[in-house]
Amino acid sequence: MASTPDPARRSERARLAVLDAALAVCRDNGFAQLTIEAIAERAGVSKKTIYRWWPSKGAVLLDAVADSATTLVTYEDTGDLARDMCAQLNSVVAMLTPQETSPLAAVIAEAQREPALAQALRDQMRPRIEGFEERLRRAQHAGDLPAHADLGVALDLFYGPIYHRLAFHFGMPDEEEIRSRVDHVIAALRAADPAR
Amino acid sequence: MASTPDPARRSERARLAVLDAALAVCRDNGFAQLTIEAIAERAGVSKKTIYRWWPSKGAVLLDAVADSATTLVTYEDTGDLARDMCAQLNSVVAMLTPQETSPLAAVIAEAQREPALAQALRDQMRPRIEGFEERLRRAQHAGDLPAHADLGVALDLFYGPIYHRLAFHFGMPDEEEIRSRVDHVIAALRAADPAR
Repeated sequence: MASTPDPARRSERARLAVLDAALAVCRDNGFAQLTIEAIAERAGVSKKTIYRWWPSKGAVLLDAVADSATTLVTYEDTGDLARDMCAQLNSVVAMLTPQETSPLAAVIAEAQREPALAQALRDQMRPRIEGFEERLRRAQHAGDLPAHADLGVALDLFYGPIYHRLAFHFGMPDEEEIRSRVDHVIAALRAADPAR
Repeated sequence: MASTPDPARRSERARLAVLDAALAVCRDNGFAQLTIEAIAERAGVSKKTIYRWWPSKGAVLLDAVADSATTLVTYEDTGDLARDMCAQLNSVVAMLTPQETSPLAAVIAEAQREPALAQALRDQMRPRIEGFEERLRRAQHAGDLPAHADLGVALDLFYGPIYHRLAFHFGMPDEEEIRSRVDHVIAALRAADPAR
């Protein structure tokens, strides 16, 4: 099979090489040094090839991050909500550590300057939020969370600490800090009075 | 008094004109269009004057944001913690709305690209965090929050939702959403078991 050249497969190989190169250059040199030239050189493709598929370096990096984070779309269900949320949040923290050279942190910053990238980033979060809500609904069915728990509040409170730390460079929360925040959020969701 | 030229006062006037100009240009055109040239032109000063005081447009904007947000350092104490936190958070939301042209959102994004700016941004948050902790300690003394309430957790959870929304362009929370999140966080701080 490998003896027949397959343009689609060659093209897919080039695409993956570009994504890997974008992540590697960002991790090695930081986003400030990330250029289409540097990605092309590392991937062994032409700049023209990159521009055929992506409008900007931010767009390349967003696809690269998405590709490397597909596991984050699926939420584990061990039956222990706190444990599963900690696993998920610790994976996000790992993607954002160290912050200075994190491709995800770079994409988030770049999206503030590039409206099309902001839109793409938001769209890419949709399946993750669905996965999150699905996991929380299972917790509701299992009686782990009350039926009235507000999933929008839950999303903001579970993920908020990470992005508050990110915005002001306070350093990512460690596993113990993640655990205490998760425990607080679960307590809040259990305590909140929906009739207020 | 105004008849005697005062270099210190003239200098302060120029400084304030630059800060006002930086905010105005960002609000009018967005950060992508914000240049030292545009700030100098709007302020009626030379580029040289700006570079004498600031190393980058991000640094100008950080000072401008700080200058326009001094009220955020002081936390109100009406005796109603939920109300005071809502007032504070709604002020932050106003600074970040609309996100596309918010000077604070621009500074946060730029800090990811500019390590010295990240350091300055973090330093600038210190008195605000002290004001926050002071307000929460008063709530603890008043019996509004238990003595064991974790102020680090409180900081992350109160502010987190805003920055989670900011990172992914989900739109800022409205007053009702702020209120429900604040109520949840207070419930969590009251419920959490420090002995866990």
